[in-house]
Amino acid sequence: MSTTTSAATSIDTGALVDRQLPDLRDAVAAARSRTYLSRYSERITDPAYGDDPIAAGAAAFEALQERGLDLDQPTTGETVPGERSPYGPQLSISYPAVDPAALVAAARDAMPAWRDAGPDVRAALCVEILDRLGARAHELGQAVHHTTGQPLVMAFQAGAPHALDRGLEAVAYAWDAQIRHAASVTWEKPGKRPTIMEKRFHVVPRGVEVTIGCRTFPTWNGLPGLMASLATGNAVIAKPHPSSVLPLGIVVEVAQQVLTAAGFSAHLATLAADTPDRPLAIELATHADVKLVDFTGSTTFGDWLEANATQARVFTEKAGLNTIVIDGTEQAAAMFANLAFSLSLYSGQMCTTPQAVFVPRGGIDTDEGHLSFEQVGERLASALEDLLEPAKKGVEILGSIGDPAVVERIEEAAGLGTVVAESRALEHPAWPDAVVRTPLVVAVDAADADAWDTERFGPIGFLVATDGTDHALELVRDTVGRRGAITFGVYAGSDEVRAAATEVALDAGVSASFDLHGTVFVNQTTAFSDFHATGANPAANASLVDDAFVAPRFAIVETRWHPEG
Amino acid sequence: MSTTTSAATSIDTGALVDRQLPDLRDAVAAARSRTYLSRYSERITDPAYGDDPIAAGAAAFEALQERGLDLDQPTTGETVPGERSPYGPQLSISYPAVDPAALVAAARDAMPAWRDAGPDVRAALCVEILDRLGARAHELGQAVHHTTGQPLVMAFQAGAPHALDRGLEAVAYAWDAQIRHAASVTWEKPGKRPTIMEKRFHVVPRGVEVTIGCRTFPTWNGLPGLMASLATGNAVIAKPHPSSVLPLGIVVEVAQQVLTAAGFSAHLATLAADTPDRPLAIELATHADVKLVDFTGSTTFGDWLEANATQARVFTEKAGLNTIVIDGTEQAAAMFANLAFSLSLYSGQMCTTPQAVFVPRGGIDTDEGHLSFEQVGERLASALEDLLEPAKKGVEILGSIGDPAVVERIEEAAGLGTVVAESRALEHPAWPDAVVRTPLVVAVDAADADAWDTERFGPIGFLVATDGTDHALELVRDTVGRRGAITFGVYAGSDEVRAAATEVALDAGVSASFDLHGTVFVNQTTAFSDFHATGANPAANASLVDDAFVAPRFAIVETRWHPEG
Repeated sequence: MSTTTSAATSIDTGALVDRQLPDLRDAVAAARSRTYLSRYSERITDPAYGDDPIAAGAAAFEALQERGLDLDQPTTGETVPGERSPYGPQLSISYPAVDPAALVAAARDAMPAWRDAGPDVRAALCVEILDRLGARAHELGQAVHHTTGQPLVMAFQAGAPHALDRGLEAVAYAWDAQIRHAASVTWEKPGKRPTIMEKRFHVVPRGVEVTIGCRTFPTWNGLPGLMASLATGNAVIAKPHPSSVLPLGIVVEVAQQVLTAAGFSAHLATLAADTPDRPLAIELATHADVKLVDFTGSTTFGDWLEANATQARVFTEKAGLNTIVIDGTEQAAAMFANLAFSLSLYSGQMCTTPQAVFVPRGGIDTDEGHLSFEQVGERLASALEDLLEPAKKGVEILGSIGDPAVVERIEEAAGLGTVVAESRALEHPAWPDAVVRTPLVVAVDAADADAWDTERFGPIGFLVATDGTDHALELVRDTVGRRGAITFGVYAGSDEVRAAATEVALDAGVSASFDLHGTVFVNQTTAFSDFHATGANPAANASLVDDAFVAPRFAIVETRWHPEG
Repeated sequence: MSTTTSAATSIDTGALVDRQLPDLRDAVAAARSRTYLSRYSERITDPAYGDDPIAAGAAAFEALQERGLDLDQPTTGETVPGERSPYGPQLSISYPAVDPAALVAAARDAMPAWRDAGPDVRAALCVEILDRLGARAHELGQAVHHTTGQPLVMAFQAGAPHALDRGLEAVAYAWDAQIRHAASVTWEKPGKRPTIMEKRFHVVPRGVEVTIGCRTFPTWNGLPGLMASLATGNAVIAKPHPSSVLPLGIVVEVAQQVLTAAGFSAHLATLAADTPDRPLAIELATHADVKLVDFTGSTTFGDWLEANATQARVFTEKAGLNTIVIDGTEQAAAMFANLAFSLSLYSGQMCTTPQAVFVPRGGIDTDEGHLSFEQVGERLASALEDLLEPAKKGVEILGSIGDPAVVERIEEAAGLGTVVAESRALEHPAWPDAVVRTPLVVAVDAADADAWDTERFGPIGFLVATDGTDHALELVRDTVGRRGAITFGVYAGSDEVRAAATEVALDAGVSASFDLHGTVFVNQTTAFSDFHATGANPAANASLVDDAFVAPRFAIVETRWHPEG
């Protein structure tokens, strides 16, 4: 284990490795056993975050806008303007404009020393990056809040601790995959005269990685690919969505601090901020030296990348059409409350939000007796009201919609069937310019596929009348195969339905949640235990996080020779 | 562990799992430690293969041609004619002609039961397939001999035991990757009221796999992808090169025997024999239900598959340009003997055969004193003569060339520089129609890149005069980056050169062998210890075998629910 501390560096990598490796081992063990593990507290008022962490986070966020990001990377000298918050304010920050080719060249030049540092040092430094981001969790949460429009508590949780836990999971997988093979061996082939060879197995990176971030979950979706790539020896370029630059900007700033403090080049992690007028994603993703691309976003662009960035391994999470099948329940009230929350959280702008809720047109049996199709709609509508009224409470679940196209989609969808729950505008008590809308729920027949069977990202749900649960499961199998899905919820009245739904889940390659009626929602997956997306249907070609997500990020180069004598 | 023995089946899968799993654990341990392991004896006269195994193998090969392959799969009713042996005879066998869409549909239908069998049963049955192929090793060796033109001992070793060991390695990796995660967990999130969930993690296959086999190493290059895919729950279709159908045909016959004996569908492994007139590779590889493609062959078609079969994960091994750098040696005679063998084995028709041998134009220092560039050429030429004379001995190293294009290339290359060693035709004592050629070695200057820096597959080597070793290493770095390479050999006069060559190997992503002067040749890699190809340069996008080769062949689908009560 080499120690790179010198006058110019302040991180003793040897000591850091000693400190972080036991935790990494625990992380690997949790990922394999799928048991609970969280390194970064999700309690927004956890004293670990300081005395008045929310206020301190807001102050740090203001100060950050004032000072700007401290980045060391090639720039054209021009700047990219900051984002406008979905809550109203223009962020008073700007970002360095970059030339993609110059950024890739700098990234490439930085790699050999990082490669030679080896898996342990790289993993320890990646955890250090995450820990320092954890120390700035509230500031990061504010940045996510004011770029994505997520409500504050969610922005903090999903944007900081949960994202950092996913990042740690990626580092743990990447580290484990690299150290699984011996680094060297004396190989002896038996025989009258045994053949002996000394062999060394060197982990080498693939090349430069580019993360193309999404508007809604810049850190949660971005950190796994960035961290897995960095941990495996690659240099990384974060290309955020133009509406959500700052969260990944903070990640890059912290990564550069840690890397340079350990004696490595800042250019191992750089930021490629761009604008809708002059997007950089294509130029970066198809650059000959870019060998890894992580993408979260639209199906159109994800498919384009898979077909065109063929010089790279492309990991995509695209759109999908998530479904719920209601067959029956023994906990009707809790089911409707759970569903109402799933539809409402962050205005339905999650890649995991259900869109189509299949209900037999003859209704369902419940602990409260038989409910007709219409009654199911009424109960869902009233659960939405209970959840989101008064507005003060509703805005903390819905957040603010940053993308005007989402609002247009709500209006369009209202005409597609019988409105069961109207989408209403709520006034945000603190941010008058915020765009807050309650979910629209429209009842349609299964035959109206034009309505429910097209992805309509946002707070838009369809109550779809089916011939019964068998019919519903066939619709799920079909739509997942064509449109893809990340989630699939089932409220099952019998073990037979549970078994049939499991069969559909396995055939279609989508994970399934059964009978959620508490504080776990179909939208949510937790690091180390739940796999987010399967990679086995059109919604994503990768899962966060498994071996298939990390193993292609490095290669093994062997050197061999006969021992002397 | 379920036992599927019934009247219709003869394999007790429970007992088989009990028997095979300890060996699989040993195989996983060997792959991780990279120590020596071989399950299938490479000794051609090993009594384990019977009393007179070579004669028995030849008889079995004749009988096989007589009876034909016993295959259960959809066919058009027409047949595909058998191959002509590079040693002369026409094989008296034919293969069922297939409709690709029908074959894929049959493969797909067979998968759910195979998926539900789970990783242990699948791995045990895959090992059983390999073991039964091991029992037919000599027959398989004859099939490889008479389709590829490899000399008999090599065809036996590379085509049977070594290929089966690689197949076992693939099964071991695939099994390990699937069982690394818990199959289920009771997850408990701490809190005042802990949140508890039951979770199951189901391994699901990607879809149908297609192996597009190569002419020269149908089993050695084909078995890893076939076995890794089958072990992870996919159905496999072997699409052999039209010149080398029978070896993969035997693999499919044995796979079907084992699968059906255990109660599974024969359609999990099928054969898609085709002809140059009506090739099936494109239709198979781009079929919507084909999700995995393994390819060994030309760079042109490999690149095409990577760019066009985007519905699948495509694993390719393509052409490359392998190099040797001679800086100096303390064992000149042994070095020349080793090089001569590397250039000669199977008429240089290995993806690992060196093509360009870089020598300083000022010569090299050796244990026999300084040798000029010309003297290096003379010594290499005389080492080739020593190795290949008399013809009786030479043919057992060279084999017979099946592809007329190879012979044309030799003639073309002879005009590209100063001939150091002429390519001579040798007469095969047993097979008068065999096409046997000794290697051509041509001396050129490094500046004559048109000569040495184009892949010329076959017994064609270039002795390339350089300014010195630094120059040679820069040429290697450049050519590996552009053309790709699977092997890189170095004869180093100093530790400095060894270090510089290692740096080039890591930068270019090619494995390096230093100072080979015994019975290990740069061309050869051994299962469980050597990685064949790195996947990190243009010669291949995958390595045989590592986690990146197996992990993308399956996905994990999760089901979760709250426990009752």
